[in-house]
Amino acid sequence: MYYNHDNEFVLDSGERLSSFTLAYETFGELNADKSNAILIFHALSGSAHVTRSIEDFEENKGVKGWWEKMVGPCKAFDTKKYFIICANVLGSCYGTTGPGSINPEKGVQYALDFPIVTINDMVKSQKFLIDFLGIQKLLAVTGGSMGGMMSIDWALNYPESVRSIIPISTTPQSSSQNIAFNEVGRQAILADPKWNNGNYYNGESPDLGLSIARMIGHITYLSEESMRGKFGRRLRNENGKNAKFHTEFEVESYLSYKGESFTKRFDANSYLYITKAIDYFDMYSDKRIEDARKKKKKILEKLKFLIIAFTSDWLYPNRQSKNLVNYLRKNNIPVSYCQIESSYGHDAFLIEDEQQAVIIREFLKNIAINI
Amino acid sequence: MYYNHDNEFVLDSGERLSSFTLAYETFGELNADKSNAILIFHALSGSAHVTRSIEDFEENKGVKGWWEKMVGPCKAFDTKKYFIICANVLGSCYGTTGPGSINPEKGVQYALDFPIVTINDMVKSQKFLIDFLGIQKLLAVTGGSMGGMMSIDWALNYPESVRSIIPISTTPQSSSQNIAFNEVGRQAILADPKWNNGNYYNGESPDLGLSIARMIGHITYLSEESMRGKFGRRLRNENGKNAKFHTEFEVESYLSYKGESFTKRFDANSYLYITKAIDYFDMYSDKRIEDARKKKKKILEKLKFLIIAFTSDWLYPNRQSKNLVNYLRKNNIPVSYCQIESSYGHDAFLIEDEQQAVIIREFLKNIAINI
Repeated sequence: MYYNHDNEFVLDSGERLSSFTLAYETFGELNADKSNAILIFHALSGSAHVTRSIEDFEENKGVKGWWEKMVGPCKAFDTKKYFIICANVLGSCYGTTGPGSINPEKGVQYALDFPIVTINDMVKSQKFLIDFLGIQKLLAVTGGSMGGMMSIDWALNYPESVRSIIPISTTPQSSSQNIAFNEVGRQAILADPKWNNGNYYNGESPDLGLSIARMIGHITYLSEESMRGKFGRRLRNENGKNAKFHTEFEVESYLSYKGESFTKRFDANSYLYITKAIDYFDMYSDKRIEDARKKKKKILEKLKFLIIAFTSDWLYPNRQSKNLVNYLRKNNIPVSYCQIESSYGHDAFLIEDEQQAVIIREFLKNIAINI
Repeated sequence: MYYNHDNEFVLDSGERLSSFTLAYETFGELNADKSNAILIFHALSGSAHVTRSIEDFEENKGVKGWWEKMVGPCKAFDTKKYFIICANVLGSCYGTTGPGSINPEKGVQYALDFPIVTINDMVKSQKFLIDFLGIQKLLAVTGGSMGGMMSIDWALNYPESVRSIIPISTTPQSSSQNIAFNEVGRQAILADPKWNNGNYYNGESPDLGLSIARMIGHITYLSEESMRGKFGRRLRNENGKNAKFHTEFEVESYLSYKGESFTKRFDANSYLYITKAIDYFDMYSDKRIEDARKKKKKILEKLKFLIIAFTSDWLYPNRQSKNLVNYLRKNNIPVSYCQIESSYGHDAFLIEDEQQAVIIREFLKNIAINI
C-alpha cells in the first residue's frame, strides 16, 4: 500500500520535498478503539515487508518477510493480536520516495538532488502515515539497528502518540567507529566510475562499489566468534595456495555472495543517503529532543522502554545501550534493560528469536493490560 | 643496502624466482663473536628503515624510521649495544623484489606473474641474508603484527639460529574476521578499473582502490575507544548537515588522508600479495613446523619467548596470543607473556613505548648475559 503526502515536507536540513510517498504494509486487524497498533521500523536495507499475511504465513505461501521469526501469527509480535504496521523509510528504494524516484520538478530521477534525510525526517514522515491511519496512540514502536534509532527518536518526539518503545541492538548515538565503517562503504561506491556522481539510473549501476560497501557492513554484522564458527579458515576448494586473488577462503566467498546479491536488490544512492542518516543520529545532541524532554516531561515519564542488546554485538556495543538506559533513568523514564547472551553479533536481533520473543511477549502483554 | 640472491628460490607454492634482492639496513656494530645481532621484521606496509643511524638519530637529521620509539641509541632495542638488522619483505615495494620489480625473464614488471609468497617464504629469504652476514645465531628476532608472525615462523623453522623471540601484537593464525577485512580491501583494489588486472605500472595506478583498502585497514588498527577519544563525533567544519557525500566528520577526513597518502608510498599489487601472505599464516596447520617441532625438540626447548599483547587490540585479540602461549608451554618451550593495558588498539605496539621498552630491555639483558 502507499501513503501519498501531497504537501510540502520540510526536512531537518532545510531542504524540501514537494511531496513524498511511503510504501507500507499492515498485518492483522486494527481493533475498535485502535489501541493494538505496533509500528515496526526496519534497518538499513529493509523494506515494509516485515512478515507475510496471516493466511500466507500459515500456508507458507508468498515471499518471506525480514523479521518473520518475531512477527507473525503467534509470534512475539503476534499478528493475530496486534495490528502491525511497517513502512519503507524515506530515502530507501522499496516503493518509498528516495534518490531513485522521479523528481516531479525535473521529470527524471532525483539522484543527488534528493535532499539529505535524517532519522528524524524518516520518523516524521511516518507520523503522517499513523495520523492518516487514524491511530492516536501506538501500543508500541520497535525496531533493530537503525530501526532502534527510529524508535528512540519517535519516543522523544511523539511521546503522546505511543505507550511503549522497544529499541533493539541499537545505539543512542553513532560512534566514530560506526561512522568510519559507513564512510569507507560510501567511498567504495563513490570510487566506482559507474556511480557517475549519482547519475546511473539510465545505464549500468555501480555494483562493484555497492558490493564492497555491503561486504564491509557484513563483517560488522557478525561477531568474530560467529565468523570463526561459521567459516573458520576453511578453503572453498583444494587448489592449494595458488589461487592468486580469486575467492579462496569460505569467508571470502560468503562475503562476495552477500555483496553481489545485495546489488540486485538495493540502490547505491539509497545506501549513501541512509548510512548518512545513521551517522548523523545522536540523540544526546539533538536540541529538539532536549526541548521535548522539558516540555513533555510528564508524558515522557509515562512511557515504558524495553531496551534489548546482545552480548556479542560489537557494532553497537552493550555499553551504548546501557548509556541510553542511564539517560532515561536519570530523566525518570521507566526502562527495562535486557542483555541477551548470544554469539551472533549485531545480526542477533534477526536470529535469536527464542529469548527475545519471551521478553517482548510478556512486556507487550503488560502494556496492553494496562491500557 | 642490498642482498642479491642469484640462485633459484623455490617458494611454498612450488613457483620459483630465478633470483631476488632484499633491501636491508643495519644499525649499530656487530660485535667480535657476532652474538649481538637482532633481526626486526616489519608489518604489512613497513620498510627496512626501522630507525636512523646513531649519528642521525642523535643530531635529529634524516628520515625517521617506523619504530624509532623502540629502536635507536638508548632505546629498548639499543643501537649502541645491539646490531640491528631490518629487511624489506619479499613481495613489498621498498627495494626488495616484488610484483613491481622487473621480471628478468620478460624485461617488464612481474605484476601478477609474481608468485604467491607466504610468511615462511619471507622468513626463508631473510635467512639467506643472515647467513650472508655471517651470523650463526641471532640474539633475538622480533616484530609487531605481520612482523610477529615472521618471528614465530623463524623460531619454529630456525630454532638453532636464534636465542629469543619477541612476537608483539600478533597472532599464531589469521582468523576468518582477519581474512574478511583483508579480502574486502583486496576487492576494492580489484574493482578499481585502473588496476587493470595488475598491469598499471606504465599508466595510472589504482589509487582509489588502494586508498579504500587502507581506510579499512586503519579502522582495524585503532580501537573503538581511541577513535572516540581522537575524533568523537566532531565535524570538520560548521557547514551543517548538508555536505551530501563530502568528508564531514573528522574521522572521515582522517581516514581519507591516511588512505590517500598511502597511495603515494605503496604499490597496490604489493598490498594484494602481502595481505594474502598474512591470511595464509596459520602456525598450527603448518606441517613443516610440526615436523621441526619433533626433530628439533631439544633446541626448541632452549628458546626464550617473550610475547607482548595490548588489551584493546581487536584485530589480533589477546585471546590469540594466549593461545600461542599455551601451545608453547604444552611443548615445554619457555615463554613469558605480557599483556599491556592500552587504549590504542592494534597500533599500540608502535605507540606505547614506555612499558614495552622496560619489559624488552630487561628481557634482552637477561638473554645477553646468559650467552
